[in-house]
Amino acid sequence: MVKRDVIQLITPGTMVDDRPNHAKTNNYLTSVVLTSAGYGLGYADLATGEIETTHLVDFDSTFNELLSLRTKEVVWSGALTDQQKDYFAKANIIISKPFKPEQPSSETSFVTQNLTNEEERLSTSQLIDYLVATQKRSLAHLQIAKTYEPSSYLQMSHVVKQNLELLNSNKTQKKAGSLYWLLDQTKTAMGGRLLKQWIDRPLIRKQDVVARQEMVEALLDDYFTRESVLDALAGVYDLERLTGRIAFGSVNGRELLQLARSLKQVPLILATLRQSQSKTLLDFASQLDPMQNVAELITTALVDDPPVSTTDGGLIRPGYNDQLDRYVDVMTNGKRWVAELEAKEREQTGINTLKIGFNKVFGYYIEVTNANKANVPEERYQRKQTLTNAERYITPELKEHEHLILEAENKSTDLEHELFVKLRDQIKQYIPQLQKLGQEIATLDVLADFAVLAEKNQYTKPTINEKDQNIQIVNGRHPVVEQVLAKRDYIPNDVLMDESSNIFLITGPNMSGKSTYMRQLALIVVMAQIGSFIPAETAKLPIFDQIFTRIGAADDLISGQSTFMVEMNEANQALMHATKKSLVIFDEIGRGTATYDGMALAGAIIKYLHNNIHAKTMFATHYHELTMLDQTLTHLKNVHVGATEKNGELIFLHKVLPGAADESYGIHVAKLAGLPQPVLAEATTMLHQLEQDQHSASTKNTE
Amino acid sequence: MVKRDVIQLITPGTMVDDRPNHAKTNNYLTSVVLTSAGYGLGYADLATGEIETTHLVDFDSTFNELLSLRTKEVVWSGALTDQQKDYFAKANIIISKPFKPEQPSSETSFVTQNLTNEEERLSTSQLIDYLVATQKRSLAHLQIAKTYEPSSYLQMSHVVKQNLELLNSNKTQKKAGSLYWLLDQTKTAMGGRLLKQWIDRPLIRKQDVVARQEMVEALLDDYFTRESVLDALAGVYDLERLTGRIAFGSVNGRELLQLARSLKQVPLILATLRQSQSKTLLDFASQLDPMQNVAELITTALVDDPPVSTTDGGLIRPGYNDQLDRYVDVMTNGKRWVAELEAKEREQTGINTLKIGFNKVFGYYIEVTNANKANVPEERYQRKQTLTNAERYITPELKEHEHLILEAENKSTDLEHELFVKLRDQIKQYIPQLQKLGQEIATLDVLADFAVLAEKNQYTKPTINEKDQNIQIVNGRHPVVEQVLAKRDYIPNDVLMDESSNIFLITGPNMSGKSTYMRQLALIVVMAQIGSFIPAETAKLPIFDQIFTRIGAADDLISGQSTFMVEMNEANQALMHATKKSLVIFDEIGRGTATYDGMALAGAIIKYLHNNIHAKTMFATHYHELTMLDQTLTHLKNVHVGATEKNGELIFLHKVLPGAADESYGIHVAKLAGLPQPVLAEATTMLHQLEQDQHSASTKNTE
Repeated sequence: MVKRDVIQLITPGTMVDDRPNHAKTNNYLTSVVLTSAGYGLGYADLATGEIETTHLVDFDSTFNELLSLRTKEVVWSGALTDQQKDYFAKANIIISKPFKPEQPSSETSFVTQNLTNEEERLSTSQLIDYLVATQKRSLAHLQIAKTYEPSSYLQMSHVVKQNLELLNSNKTQKKAGSLYWLLDQTKTAMGGRLLKQWIDRPLIRKQDVVARQEMVEALLDDYFTRESVLDALAGVYDLERLTGRIAFGSVNGRELLQLARSLKQVPLILATLRQSQSKTLLDFASQLDPMQNVAELITTALVDDPPVSTTDGGLIRPGYNDQLDRYVDVMTNGKRWVAELEAKEREQTGINTLKIGFNKVFGYYIEVTNANKANVPEERYQRKQTLTNAERYITPELKEHEHLILEAENKSTDLEHELFVKLRDQIKQYIPQLQKLGQEIATLDVLADFAVLAEKNQYTKPTINEKDQNIQIVNGRHPVVEQVLAKRDYIPNDVLMDESSNIFLITGPNMSGKSTYMRQLALIVVMAQIGSFIPAETAKLPIFDQIFTRIGAADDLISGQSTFMVEMNEANQALMHATKKSLVIFDEIGRGTATYDGMALAGAIIKYLHNNIHAKTMFATHYHELTMLDQTLTHLKNVHVGATEKNGELIFLHKVLPGAADESYGIHVAKLAGLPQPVLAEATTMLHQLEQDQHSASTKNTE
Repeated sequence: MVKRDVIQLITPGTMVDDRPNHAKTNNYLTSVVLTSAGYGLGYADLATGEIETTHLVDFDSTFNELLSLRTKEVVWSGALTDQQKDYFAKANIIISKPFKPEQPSSETSFVTQNLTNEEERLSTSQLIDYLVATQKRSLAHLQIAKTYEPSSYLQMSHVVKQNLELLNSNKTQKKAGSLYWLLDQTKTAMGGRLLKQWIDRPLIRKQDVVARQEMVEALLDDYFTRESVLDALAGVYDLERLTGRIAFGSVNGRELLQLARSLKQVPLILATLRQSQSKTLLDFASQLDPMQNVAELITTALVDDPPVSTTDGGLIRPGYNDQLDRYVDVMTNGKRWVAELEAKEREQTGINTLKIGFNKVFGYYIEVTNANKANVPEERYQRKQTLTNAERYITPELKEHEHLILEAENKSTDLEHELFVKLRDQIKQYIPQLQKLGQEIATLDVLADFAVLAEKNQYTKPTINEKDQNIQIVNGRHPVVEQVLAKRDYIPNDVLMDESSNIFLITGPNMSGKSTYMRQLALIVVMAQIGSFIPAETAKLPIFDQIFTRIGAADDLISGQSTFMVEMNEANQALMHATKKSLVIFDEIGRGTATYDGMALAGAIIKYLHNNIHAKTMFATHYHELTMLDQTLTHLKNVHVGATEKNGELIFLHKVLPGAADESYGIHVAKLAGLPQPVLAEATTMLHQLEQDQHSASTKNTE
């Protein structure tokens, strides 16, 4: 019996998925520790070696961060309540126990070297221990852990990111229809992953945003530079994942050549950037290390088209190793000798159809058809096999050369594998530099992508304004909706908000475009703060610190959760945490309860936002009565979406206009739908009565 | 070159899908003609041979019928507007042009023999022509076309059926979660299809409903009869589709045996039913023709486990045909002779390892290992093949017997196929009887299914009341939701409606169970009118002629359709077509527009239903203000769903209670969600103000 040791444990968080359509997605293994001071959270992508860590104050923010990382597995030390376990189960996150390796790995001890915070150090160590204990293979590509603070980025809860459809469409839970889907025309898988990370964590420092904008602008302004860069990027493979495979020892000859070919693109990129007039591009170029020595190592050693297998020979270029060349010589000469033997035997026997063949069972043999069997020199030839219409023979001389040829083949295959492993280990020394280069190329890829989109979709550079929180978007568009609609059908809208209009109260019927208008603002803010240009004619934007949303979800009959409780919880997040610098998007607050009840809550929430928070707020509502709040709340402004009638159908103009919406839209549609006349008459009478009551009530209120 | 004629055209409507998980679904090819008198509609399921036809007045009702049939292809003669074409495209229905066969088929001329209506005759002829022209094979299983009137059934538009989730869940568009999913525990594919047809077309004549109920009751009351019937049904294959395959000539031996085995179950069923005390079951038994002659025919002819192929022999039972038996004799004798030859040759040559083998290239041969080659009688043996370690020989005697054996094999295979085809053609004569038997077994299957469900889920028999339209359901349950929830968590509810409470106005927050309560009533009505027992303690129900619904759909951002227009159109259907005998379910009418506007429309629609239609109506609303209508509308009754607080969470009691809902639910939840105190205080003040205004307004109204 052969004893089988466990070679490697594959868990959801440590699975390296090499399928091409998964290349643009990070798979993060996460690790959480809980101390008296709070939570430590570390995460790693085993495929790329990237490791980051942070510390958080409570379970909710930790869980939210885990959701944002879309982790499939968390290594969790410490207790969990049943409710918390339930959250993880619903989010499809597997909880794994910490797992220590039998002996600590010296190879990974550097990972935590820069960590000073106790929670961060503990969670990262726990993460590394788990990786070492489960992987049982080289992890030389793990990078030094970086720390980050969620509050150093534009903060959005996981729910907000979902509501805004940043990475997935709400409807399908797929990429199509999301902001990421729109923005991702990156050329490399590395760029795709980096773009996703940027969308997850937009910037909040003006100079960081401006630095990205400058690169985008330089690439946008210089058509030839941009096109050359894009061409070169298209030839770059996934350096980050290739370095992972080099570390694991699972890389093959073809992949090493992919690495070499990718590296050969870097001088092209450098040359292009250096020809540019832009200081930004020149600066970027100056930090790129082309690493041509590594490319050289590979192309010198390997043939142009090596096989997938690294153990069956055919990998190493002639001239690379003397001993190998000698083996090849023996093989080549041996085969030439065999060919010459065939000619000689034909001549000697007079059998023109005599031929020498090879198969795996008998080795080399001489084959003679039955018709010529009489001419075979029986004394020299030894019969080996009878076929229906031919006989096969061997000779001692033939077998002797066969032995020489096969021995050389065996030895050369072994030597090739040996040389290949040596080459791989040599390149392993360059992993940190390769990873740095990969990051730089990914950055260039995303910024070039932004430039391409800016040109293709006519995006403009927003001016970032730190003086006040005023918003000035002229003819802004919803970036995703404008792509899905034919572009000429899309009606752009301004967003002009200053101190006097902190709150936009938006009225109008369903489907008229209220939601699109609000989402449009949020998406433009996210795009601006990741450094992208934006869908607008001109724009001046402040930096936002947080985005809050409350956007209606579809009712769910059977799940039975109180959606109104969810609604109130989401609204409360904004009331508790929003600042003057935040953006609040509230769609139809109060709809889940009775009319006056919901109306009263909506009104009270608006007043609180208005008087206490001063955040920029868009508040869409069916409660037409709330439009009278503009008489008492000086920073609130009514807007509505216009509509008109055409050929017996009501057409939404999708144009946001000042003032409150017309209140008799519904009765108008009912008439177009052909409802009986008595119903229409009755409804009109009732509406007038209600309006009159409301008017007298509000007059009373202001008395 | 071989000239290839078109053998058969496969179109979406003529595809026979034999995969087991499609067996419970009919695939209907439909055909429509338009004359000055209106529309004729015919449909056929090619797999089962079932054909029905009807005539309709306009495009909308025709299109609705096509949707209900879930047809994938309609043969349409006459013009279509672009908009109509668009409807078909959106519904994934392919429009095919009529297609006449080169010569009319006499085999199918009987199909239309009973049709008197011109449109029905034309559409059915067009359907048959299309089938004959595309199929180019026997269609002997097509049944005589039956006519039906949509108004002879409980009428529901396709949208209503969707809203009520009769066949598919709205969320997933799959069977799971639908009424059909709940009810379908049928044992046979025929039963599954029939149940689907019943759900699509519930009955409207009391005696028809009662007839089904009696069977269900008889089966429910007699445990042993029910279990024996179920056991027997489990052994019944799809008779309808088997007859289709017999007609097509594509049936194989295994399938014929399935038919025989299915038929063998019929005497078991008969015996069981005849032992029962129930006159209903005895009557049912008396019409069943067990068709044992067909079963006999098959089992006499075929072996117990025939191969799939019908051309390679091994099908026919020994003793069935003399000539075949003789061939088999020759084969058997020949093989015995060969076995004896082996023994004889071993003795003669003294080679103990000598053996006789057979392969397809050389036929029979004698094999001798190299070690024994010296002992071979070279004069008798003729060398045929040399292997590495053995030689193979033949003798003239061996070849002669080989010839006899192979010839007998060939002839017997041909004869077996001939006998099989004869058998198949013989059974083809019984197709109409087999189809009738299939229908009867399907009926028994569904009714036994109802009995099983009644016992398992504690359903009761509703009393059908034709005197008035009063509803008396005591402790009714939503059949699907109660299964999805653990049963003990389900709170049953009464529905007690008479003349004085034609309209239930239901108030209460989202997710409290308003929709479940309304859907529960609709599903109980459908279940009762298909003859099933229902989830209630006791129930007395009238017969409804139509069901109308307006149930909110999820908003769709990008499709951009005016949902409010859809809402008004659906509401208008009820206002136009509902009668005193109809059921109307309106959920949140008016939500798609501004508050007062929607409120006025909802109020006017209620008044119209109340004063002009008198249909039994459930109307759920957030417009708390509408609850005051009970002061002026004498047939309207307020009900609400109760709620209570527990451990800081608001718990819905799911109990429907008389009177209007509490209006401060929302503020209560907001408090539990922890909204800031000033927000709660402000909301409470505003709510009081609104209520006060409303009160003074309504006082004014009634003055």
